[in-house]
Amino acid sequence: MSETNGKKRILSGFQDFLPEKMMARKRIIGKIKSAYELFGFLPQETPVLEYADLLLGKYGDNDKLVYQFRDKGDRHVAMRYDLTVPLSRVVQMYANDISFPYRRYQVGMVWRADKPGKGRYREFMQIDADIVSDSSMLADIETIFLDLQIMKSLSIDATVRMNDRRILDSLADICQIPANTNSSLFRIIDKYDKIGMSGVMDELRKVPFSKEILTIVKQYLSISGTNDEVLESLRKLLGNSSSFQVGYDCLSAINNALKDADTSLASYRIDPTIARGLDYYTGLIFETTFNPDPEYGSICSGGRYDRLIKGFDGNSLPTVGVSIGLDRLFAAMESINLISQIKTTTQVFIVNFGNQYLGEYLRLAADLRGNGISVEISPDASKLKKQLRCADVKGIPNVILMGSDELEQGKVVVRSMIDGSQAVIERKDIASHRFGIAS
Amino acid sequence: MSETNGKKRILSGFQDFLPEKMMARKRIIGKIKSAYELFGFLPQETPVLEYADLLLGKYGDNDKLVYQFRDKGDRHVAMRYDLTVPLSRVVQMYANDISFPYRRYQVGMVWRADKPGKGRYREFMQIDADIVSDSSMLADIETIFLDLQIMKSLSIDATVRMNDRRILDSLADICQIPANTNSSLFRIIDKYDKIGMSGVMDELRKVPFSKEILTIVKQYLSISGTNDEVLESLRKLLGNSSSFQVGYDCLSAINNALKDADTSLASYRIDPTIARGLDYYTGLIFETTFNPDPEYGSICSGGRYDRLIKGFDGNSLPTVGVSIGLDRLFAAMESINLISQIKTTTQVFIVNFGNQYLGEYLRLAADLRGNGISVEISPDASKLKKQLRCADVKGIPNVILMGSDELEQGKVVVRSMIDGSQAVIERKDIASHRFGIAS
Repeated sequence: MSETNGKKRILSGFQDFLPEKMMARKRIIGKIKSAYELFGFLPQETPVLEYADLLLGKYGDNDKLVYQFRDKGDRHVAMRYDLTVPLSRVVQMYANDISFPYRRYQVGMVWRADKPGKGRYREFMQIDADIVSDSSMLADIETIFLDLQIMKSLSIDATVRMNDRRILDSLADICQIPANTNSSLFRIIDKYDKIGMSGVMDELRKVPFSKEILTIVKQYLSISGTNDEVLESLRKLLGNSSSFQVGYDCLSAINNALKDADTSLASYRIDPTIARGLDYYTGLIFETTFNPDPEYGSICSGGRYDRLIKGFDGNSLPTVGVSIGLDRLFAAMESINLISQIKTTTQVFIVNFGNQYLGEYLRLAADLRGNGISVEISPDASKLKKQLRCADVKGIPNVILMGSDELEQGKVVVRSMIDGSQAVIERKDIASHRFGIAS
Repeated sequence: MSETNGKKRILSGFQDFLPEKMMARKRIIGKIKSAYELFGFLPQETPVLEYADLLLGKYGDNDKLVYQFRDKGDRHVAMRYDLTVPLSRVVQMYANDISFPYRRYQVGMVWRADKPGKGRYREFMQIDADIVSDSSMLADIETIFLDLQIMKSLSIDATVRMNDRRILDSLADICQIPANTNSSLFRIIDKYDKIGMSGVMDELRKVPFSKEILTIVKQYLSISGTNDEVLESLRKLLGNSSSFQVGYDCLSAINNALKDADTSLASYRIDPTIARGLDYYTGLIFETTFNPDPEYGSICSGGRYDRLIKGFDGNSLPTVGVSIGLDRLFAAMESINLISQIKTTTQVFIVNFGNQYLGEYLRLAADLRGNGISVEISPDASKLKKQLRCADVKGIPNVILMGSDELEQGKVVVRSMIDGSQAVIERKDIASHRFGIAS
């Protein structure tokens, strides 16, 4: 009868986050948020459920991955698939209340009815930042700077790889591929990282594209060198196409701006093999490779999409943005021990020597908490050894011992659970004592 | 055809949070989280979707309010209705990985297919903290202290009203009401705040309960005075029931512990009219009245439930906890202007005097951001007046002017958007300048 047979199970592709992992995730989210805020982005939130209408038709073949159902009022509703389409709704609904250019970020779960696998979940977290209604090249540059800033904040050795849809358009143009088959070309190029040059050639042949096209695409994908050299090679190959110049200018501007930027561990390069799967991009596109293990795929991606978001009057609002999949980023960082595992934020554990002292323990806890020190009081007066083990298992770095002797003398004993050292401190001075934190 | 007629609409009972409101919510959430952490609670997160099995049967008549559907794999799934039932699953699944007593908090949306109304949403945020596997009276006391701490952190004038299910059990006992009709008695008492004494008497008559019962309940609900007096009156009325003593001891212990606590604006009282609707409570129960306008109902509630959560072996784990409905709390605080509305966290707006200076602006922004100062650069070199208006509308408190003159002299002009004052600062010193924040 019951799908769970009375067992308490979690749905496949979904995750629980117990405190240790949750705190590690929160630290990463916090650093990303701080970077977003340094760049003037402000937080926004939208519902988990939307009218299905809003979402369907936006994700091409992936529409089938949208969680959807009829609610009790027989409305056709869907769970949010990304944070971009809800942003488009918000901008159109509240265009009069928003100050443009609108720099907003959103941290939120999204749901996709995909086959769960290693690092692929049905519920996963996206952390997006977008600049809405800003067609300036400055916005493109700032987006790349933001990506680099995030990698720096997280101490990640990464490479931001940039291209421009208008460069790809000019490739299609030079290949004389009509606009309606453009996207099949781009989608094949997008697989380059996974299937390599010969794989790309095979797929192009299957479409089928002509031998001449294959030759040009091969030349295009083989372009390499310094950023200046890549730009020059692109000009030589595609400069005759009318759509080339504006893409070239964008990448050149970013390249120039980046030349004297402090990028810490992260590097950047103009990379013609970057295409991005989504149809809606119109200008700059970028991905971020995790250098210690590129197999993780892009850990921070985005680009310019000038036609998806519309204002109140229906006119398009040019937008550029960045999206981070937290679960993938976390897995990548974890793989090289970049995640510090802290078991607790609690600083002090008060040993309980008997309920007759409860009032004293509560006052002690109140004094400490009043000074911003986090405290847990042992619930029962079990053996000291057992209580110390409890503090140890929880990873709480400091224990306070206050029994009848200490109470008589107006003192407390502070024991470090890290090195076992003990200090006797006046009870009245305890709130100003500097307690260590777990690390 | 389409439910939305192509219009971009939000579902009824759901909310978007634009930055201003979102930041205000985040500040309140942050204060509540900090209070939880001071008391040694750690964060946990669970999925939005669960097997429907887990949820259904847990909420009595309210089961019908659970959002549920069949997913693409034909699993019967449901959206989380509260944070307590998922906690029970987590504890049972990961009992071996959790250090008990388990102090966890969770911040998360929950969904109820209820009729939306003023302050009542279908998607709303709960902020819960629970101590799992702790039957000590200390845990009950700490939970009340925590409630008071939160009210203090939020500067709210509130009254924590406490009772104990075992006191109510003894009332049922004295009334000779059999255990299986207990809950109808408690549910009627729970309405006392809304329908008053005569309303309660009417409903009791309808059940029907006898005249003798009505007399005792009326005596019970009329008990008032200081906490010590209330406890004494309860003893006189119910002391002969065997279940009375343990409830009395619990409330006495809390009362004694609270006597010398610093509760700031908030107060507390033992209140026999508190009953709580949910069946699962077994001991302490409490609600928190927002004194400036009690009509908001309880802004922080909870109690002890010793039978809902089970360990790996199926044995019950005694638990006490607190739950805050953020939307109601926010509305209450907003009604008396306790919410500070800050438009932005961005501190500096850099005026754009022309794209020829873009490199300079980017370097300036990088210097400031490197020192933790949040910066937005104006995207285009429009008229100064227009750019200043943009900064003003966004509420950014400081503007930097750096045109050809300033660049030549190695200086920048910092203008306060709050009082219009200007200061000329050396370009090299700008990163250490103390910029104001919006307020």
